[in-house]
Order: sequence, then C-alpha cells, then structure tokens
Amino acid sequence: MSKNAAVPASPALELPVLDLADCCAPIRREPIDADGAVTLAEAFKALADPVRLQLLNLIATADTGEACACDLVEPVGKSQPTVSHHLKVLREAGLIEGEKRGTWVWYSVVPSRLDELQRVLGRR
Amino acid sequence: MSKNAAVPASPALELPVLDLADCCAPIRREPIDADGAVTLAEAFKALADPVRLQLLNLIATADTGEACACDLVEPVGKSQPTVSHHLKVLREAGLIEGEKRGTWVWYSVVPSRLDELQRVLGRR
Repeated sequence: MSKNAAVPASPALELPVLDLADCCAPIRREPIDADGAVTLAEAFKALADPVRLQLLNLIATADTGEACACDLVEPVGKSQPTVSHHLKVLREAGLIEGEKRGTWVWYSVVPSRLDELQRVLGRR
Repeated sequence: MSKNAAVPASPALELPVLDLADCCAPIRREPIDADGAVTLAEAFKALADPVRLQLLNLIATADTGEACACDLVEPVGKSQPTVSHHLKVLREAGLIEGEKRGTWVWYSVVPSRLDELQRVLGRR
C-alpha cells in the first residue's frame, strides 16, 4: 500500500519545506585517508575537554550567533584566564573565530570546520 | 502564491519519503550542562586519535553497515594488537559495538551515540 494513500487531496494541504542544505550535512561515505585523519583528530582533541565543549556549545547556541568572552566565564564556573586558555585552544583548532571589539573579543563558530567533523560522524 | 500551486494533482505523484531520523540529527540549541559535557568529552577523547578516527570511519562506511576486525588491519597500516586496542577504546566509549561470529568480531557503529556527538556540533 502506498504511504501516501491516506493523505487527503485537500487544497489546504501545505507540506513543510525542508531546507536540506541547512539541515543535513552530507554523509561522508568514502574512507578518510591517514593525513585527513591526523588533521581531524586534532580538532576532536580540542573537543575532548568538558569546559571546551561547554564553551563551544555556548557560542554555537548564542541567540545572535556570537558570544562575548565576558559572557562565557560565569556559565562554565572557571576563572577568566582558564576560559581564555580554552578559547585559545578552540581557536587554534579552527573551531571558533574571534573578533575584538573594544575591550572584549566576540566569538562565533566556524561552520565549515564543524561540518567536517559532523561528516566524519555521519553514518549510512 | 502557494508553494504547492504548480504540483499536478496526478495520482501517480509520489513524494519522496524522507526518514528524518536517519537524515537529520536535531540541532541542540540549549546549553549542555557540566555533567553532560564530561560524558561527551570522553567520547570526543576516543576520537582524538587518527587511527581510531579511520577505524570508526571504515566501520561507518562499510557497505553492509558492519565491518569484520579482519578487514580493518590492512587499511590503517597498523598491527593486529594495535588495531584491537583502538577498537576496544572506541567500544568502551560507546561509539561502536561488536558481535563475535566464529573467529572474528564484526563491528558496527552505535547510531544514537554518534547522533549525540553530532548534536553538540550542530549549529544554528
């Protein structure tokens, strides 16, 4: 039986429009080579720390798409120098980028880099 | 104008059925808490190694969805004991699971676990 058999032919029917480009990172089906694995492993190493993971998550989920360093200290419960160190590691791994405005640096994620990591986790 | 206005009312029309569970991990917009970050960081730590990343990728991209340990040694260019060690780390991190059949263990990924990691990398 067709899966669409129960759908009424109503003119009011509006199917949701899925933007697949925003929604789904393409699944990487080909094996990664040794060199690619080294680069990617470096990025995963940067994520292998709970504080850095929280910081990345806070930046990625910020309403405006970017987060001020001044707003990242309190949520993770660490000192300013510790947070600065972790932000530096994330930045050096290419996962976030920062822009200095006045006293503070504002951070946003690097979408292409996160996509790369997501693709490696992509499954059939 | 309705987006569906141009769709002919043909009985032969079959819309592709998207399995969103397979295709799109939902984007995690809420901050992860400290405990959640610790667990996730452990999993990312398991991925912070080029050989483990290659092994996970080989298993995830295997045609049948699973890979025999016997087929994982040659592609990564490491010894059997080294490969076994790395597979154990991936298994302990909950990223893969294995099933013994005769002499060999067959590995497949744990989709729910990979989804968790993908969600943390999800971006706006």
